[in-house]
Amino acid sequence: MAKGLPKRTENYSEWYNEIVKRADLAENSSVRGCMVIKPYGFAIWEKMQRALDDMFKETGHVNAYFPLFVPKSFLEKEEEHAEGFAKECAVVTHYRLKANPDGKGLVVDPNAKLEEELIVRPTSETVIWNTYKGWIQSWRDLPILVNQWCNVVRWEMRTRLFLRTAEFLWQEGHTAHATREEAVEETERMLGVYARFAEEWMALPVIQGTKTASERFAGAEDTLCIEAMMQDGKALQSGTSHFLGQNFAKSFDVKFVNKENQLEYAWATSWGVSTRMMGALVMAHSDDHGLVLPPKLAPIQVVIVPIYKTPEELAVISETVDPIVKELKAAGVIVKYDDADNQRSGWKFAEYELRGVPVRLGLGSRDLENGTIEVARRDNLTKESVAIEGVVEHVKVLLDEIQANLFDRALKFREENTHIIDTWEDFKTQIERGGFIMSHWDGTAETEEKIKEETKATIRCIPFNSITEMGKCVYSGKDSARRVVFARAY
Amino acid sequence: MAKGLPKRTENYSEWYNEIVKRADLAENSSVRGCMVIKPYGFAIWEKMQRALDDMFKETGHVNAYFPLFVPKSFLEKEEEHAEGFAKECAVVTHYRLKANPDGKGLVVDPNAKLEEELIVRPTSETVIWNTYKGWIQSWRDLPILVNQWCNVVRWEMRTRLFLRTAEFLWQEGHTAHATREEAVEETERMLGVYARFAEEWMALPVIQGTKTASERFAGAEDTLCIEAMMQDGKALQSGTSHFLGQNFAKSFDVKFVNKENQLEYAWATSWGVSTRMMGALVMAHSDDHGLVLPPKLAPIQVVIVPIYKTPEELAVISETVDPIVKELKAAGVIVKYDDADNQRSGWKFAEYELRGVPVRLGLGSRDLENGTIEVARRDNLTKESVAIEGVVEHVKVLLDEIQANLFDRALKFREENTHIIDTWEDFKTQIERGGFIMSHWDGTAETEEKIKEETKATIRCIPFNSITEMGKCVYSGKDSARRVVFARAY
Repeated sequence: MAKGLPKRTENYSEWYNEIVKRADLAENSSVRGCMVIKPYGFAIWEKMQRALDDMFKETGHVNAYFPLFVPKSFLEKEEEHAEGFAKECAVVTHYRLKANPDGKGLVVDPNAKLEEELIVRPTSETVIWNTYKGWIQSWRDLPILVNQWCNVVRWEMRTRLFLRTAEFLWQEGHTAHATREEAVEETERMLGVYARFAEEWMALPVIQGTKTASERFAGAEDTLCIEAMMQDGKALQSGTSHFLGQNFAKSFDVKFVNKENQLEYAWATSWGVSTRMMGALVMAHSDDHGLVLPPKLAPIQVVIVPIYKTPEELAVISETVDPIVKELKAAGVIVKYDDADNQRSGWKFAEYELRGVPVRLGLGSRDLENGTIEVARRDNLTKESVAIEGVVEHVKVLLDEIQANLFDRALKFREENTHIIDTWEDFKTQIERGGFIMSHWDGTAETEEKIKEETKATIRCIPFNSITEMGKCVYSGKDSARRVVFARAY
Repeated sequence: MAKGLPKRTENYSEWYNEIVKRADLAENSSVRGCMVIKPYGFAIWEKMQRALDDMFKETGHVNAYFPLFVPKSFLEKEEEHAEGFAKECAVVTHYRLKANPDGKGLVVDPNAKLEEELIVRPTSETVIWNTYKGWIQSWRDLPILVNQWCNVVRWEMRTRLFLRTAEFLWQEGHTAHATREEAVEETERMLGVYARFAEEWMALPVIQGTKTASERFAGAEDTLCIEAMMQDGKALQSGTSHFLGQNFAKSFDVKFVNKENQLEYAWATSWGVSTRMMGALVMAHSDDHGLVLPPKLAPIQVVIVPIYKTPEELAVISETVDPIVKELKAAGVIVKYDDADNQRSGWKFAEYELRGVPVRLGLGSRDLENGTIEVARRDNLTKESVAIEGVVEHVKVLLDEIQANLFDRALKFREENTHIIDTWEDFKTQIERGGFIMSHWDGTAETEEKIKEETKATIRCIPFNSITEMGKCVYSGKDSARRVVFARAY
């Protein structure tokens, strides 16, 4: 099944594409730039959604739903925002088709032209702040802590499954606050939620930090992000949280009476993660045999494959397996007993390996005689024989161990591929080899731009936890107070 | 708070609109025909989604996601389908805006015209069957049992919150089968799921039946539906399940090798329910005081309101309330203790009544002395004093009782307002008074159309459970083998 899967070291990009397709996560649709998320891929996304949604609710947020369409005039209201999104958007201009008067098929009905064009939302700040205007009069109406799960469209020219598609699924949180401090706190809180989700659920270590001015969200005063390292050493931005200041409140005239009885513009944040995280999940953990999934996000955590020749043998094996399945389910483990007789066990082994099922249990007649069962780990591909008696307890512990191991492995990989670089020559050499580079930067957009032009490396973020350490900019030699993270990125 | 809510008997339509707005369920957006689903309304929708999604999964279905856009050529492929949806759709013609060369703002960039127009999906049969072409080769690939939760757009000219909006949220199941029998069975199974959901969760009794040919989904061979009666006696179609035959398989050339090793077109079903059900929920149970929610779908099932004058009094009350809250939560009850001090208890009472919280507990100092607590039911507005000791158990039983009572009340209402009518004179008189009319019909589209023209009544369905009973068509006097359900409808 997994035959012919490209090796990571040979063609990382093709390896990724093939895993996404062969593990049945997603495929390109006939609609330009849009993907079909297949049931197995969607099951992972559903688990991500559920975990994140629970975290949002724990931090006091509620869900709502806002219109798909953004009137053109809304987009125009915030200048930077318009600049950022107008160039790549789907524009609805008509509301009817009619039979082609000159022949077969349908044509756009010229009589059904919209007075004002509608943009398919690339993000919803404008529509939402136009709505908040009606919701916010007094400081008593604040904070508003709303999130929505939805689809958005950005007309990307070059697309890749999950990583960059014209339509993608995401959540976007949009909050309104009475003070700058509260809004800043919320921006940081939600980045923390994303970081915790990435690390605890995706087993993906992330660097939290601030974007430079040139990498900020269009319309934001500050953009915070989490950055993760993929196995080719490139960075993938996995979530962003924006402090929007009063920009959108001013554009949409959202004022409230504060505690001092004065009219003031509301303070805003927005934050989002998308199906892009699916790409990060694949690229961070998988190997040349296929997908590797952290147990907490695996649609199937344990698969049990019987090894038999005759129906009688299968019946005897099933007698042992049935109570194991029951016990595992009772323990909250998602288990599948694959006793389908149209495929051999070898084929099944390869198939579940390709699909990244964390634990595989194999049971044949000889195992039964010995009272043992074979336990195979997907993360490190090791196998061991354990007593049937204690297998449920063993599997429960193992799932936690695999989750932890994937995180540790990814963290170790990131540490081994993070380099402290102090000279421009070393920088240029290292960036070709990949990984994160921690270097001093003089803080100017000019230097940032030049480094990008010469090396394709961008500043991924100014990390929160960087030590204040005086130094010289790796490019310009000017003074610098802290190192930032450079990398090539998805 | 609920002051000035219109009475149902005076202006049912306004009463509905006002409840939706004042109970914070939804509001009209600035985007023509699109609504904003507010957090409280969305919380109800989320509960509906969760319950339905669980039922879909129990019946073997999985979720996936397909593109938002339908290329015009896809829509053209199935003639009836195109006919049904082309006249009211949002058409994307361009993919970029640019700075207005003649002044301020943005204009559509004429250089970014799409080669082929894209329709924002009104439903996804075409996109999905175009995808299934790649998934189906052999009978072994079948059945495919896929569902998606998403937004769809139909360019309605006259919109009403939840009942008819240009954009709405829904789920659409799309299944493919190897035989006609299996597909028919699936169509019926999913209608059964909808009926069970309506009755067990929404407390809404429904009539299951078949649509007449003229009321069928565009492209279906058969459309099954559930129909519910609103309090004004009008019908509301709350869910449909379509047997699509081989129509879409033929349009998109989806053939498979069957067990007899012959090429055959796949058999299809599709089925959906939408945010329209929110409208049904409001209109079926609510009263002149506001929203009434069945406990199983209420975002807050029990609210506890302290009645006090001083902070000291509140502290004493809270000492009694805190363990009750804890116990209720432990019992799986969603409870809110509203000890906010910025509103009086009377205001809170009215507010939770308006929002349809099924059970309200009120507790003051005098109650404390007596060891009792006041329990108020939202469904019938009765109150009783019960011992604090047993209140948790009491509330648990009460929630079930309210759920059952709402269903029984709605069923009784429907029965009282369902009339067996045998003459055209009686029909015309009764239809003005409202309710369902069970009459004989000669089975022709002509008669159906004339009845609609003359009375605005449509055939809601040919009910599954109707008794075969020979009679004469109420309009034409021709022979008829069974009664059908006539009503005016939303």
